[in-house]
Amino acid sequence: MSHLMPVVSTPVRRIAEKTIEVTPTTPDERDQIVQIAAETGVFSDHELETVAELLGDYYRDAETSGYHFLTHREGERVLGFAAWGPRDLSGKGYDLYWIATRPEAQRHGVARALLAAIEERVRERRGYWVWIETSDTPPYAAARGLYERCGYRPALTLPDFYKDGDGLVVYIKRVSG
Amino acid sequence: MSHLMPVVSTPVRRIAEKTIEVTPTTPDERDQIVQIAAETGVFSDHELETVAELLGDYYRDAETSGYHFLTHREGERVLGFAAWGPRDLSGKGYDLYWIATRPEAQRHGVARALLAAIEERVRERRGYWVWIETSDTPPYAAARGLYERCGYRPALTLPDFYKDGDGLVVYIKRVSG
Repeated sequence: MSHLMPVVSTPVRRIAEKTIEVTPTTPDERDQIVQIAAETGVFSDHELETVAELLGDYYRDAETSGYHFLTHREGERVLGFAAWGPRDLSGKGYDLYWIATRPEAQRHGVARALLAAIEERVRERRGYWVWIETSDTPPYAAARGLYERCGYRPALTLPDFYKDGDGLVVYIKRVSG
Repeated sequence: MSHLMPVVSTPVRRIAEKTIEVTPTTPDERDQIVQIAAETGVFSDHELETVAELLGDYYRDAETSGYHFLTHREGERVLGFAAWGPRDLSGKGYDLYWIATRPEAQRHGVARALLAAIEERVRERRGYWVWIETSDTPPYAAARGLYERCGYRPALTLPDFYKDGDGLVVYIKRVSG
């Protein structure tokens, strides 16, 4: 029995055996996405409300809303999601708004696959730049490490931008052009 | 007669004799503001529509909309305007969206006074950072020069961000904290 993994990790172990599946988020995934955002522990209440609100806008009309959601799922289970969209008044720049992975599914390429899927869609739309704004605080260290491993450059750092002791880092990647 | 200035410059000459007046934009200034934006020649049709739309949001409820307009006027005549507001999901960062001066009133401190008024309001709200996104193209050279003379630092440059040959420059200034 010593080699049996805890039940919680079973879905994670299966990821490597399955084709990674990243698809546009569907209405039946709404609850899981809000849950994943909450589970990360880094979204404020206001940010969680914003995720739910923009998800609603996306379901109504993604192109008009400017918010696009992608889901990484394994069967019925959503392991991670990302929200992205064209940057206001910019023809070639795209924002990554959020990317989140279930805690038990982290370090298995879920976020990396979501990032790659976004970059592919930006290229399809003839976009050049992906722009990520994140925090310079320790809870975001794993996210910052991921962005850097995926070729994003920390292009701008502003201390205390969100609040005292919580600064902004802008990560940039040219994905085409 | 040789020393008589053209009529068009009369209001400009009077600026220096008057107290500079920067106040929150009022409904009767709507047409002049849209006209000034158009006269600059650097707003696209889509951007002009956006100015008019956000001006409407501001008139309905500035705090809810997140867009604040300031006007520089001399008597009944609006010489310039600026739009600014809190940056989404940031407690300490503020965006300058637009700043524009009538062509015949340029180089007389109108834009500089508008910038100073915005910085003052950001400080009143306990904000730290003012963020300006502009173009790296020649028509914006005067604006970029103004920002730099007013203490803004070109913190990030992304070629082709708006479209091919039209890149982004982000100017940043810490105004408090």
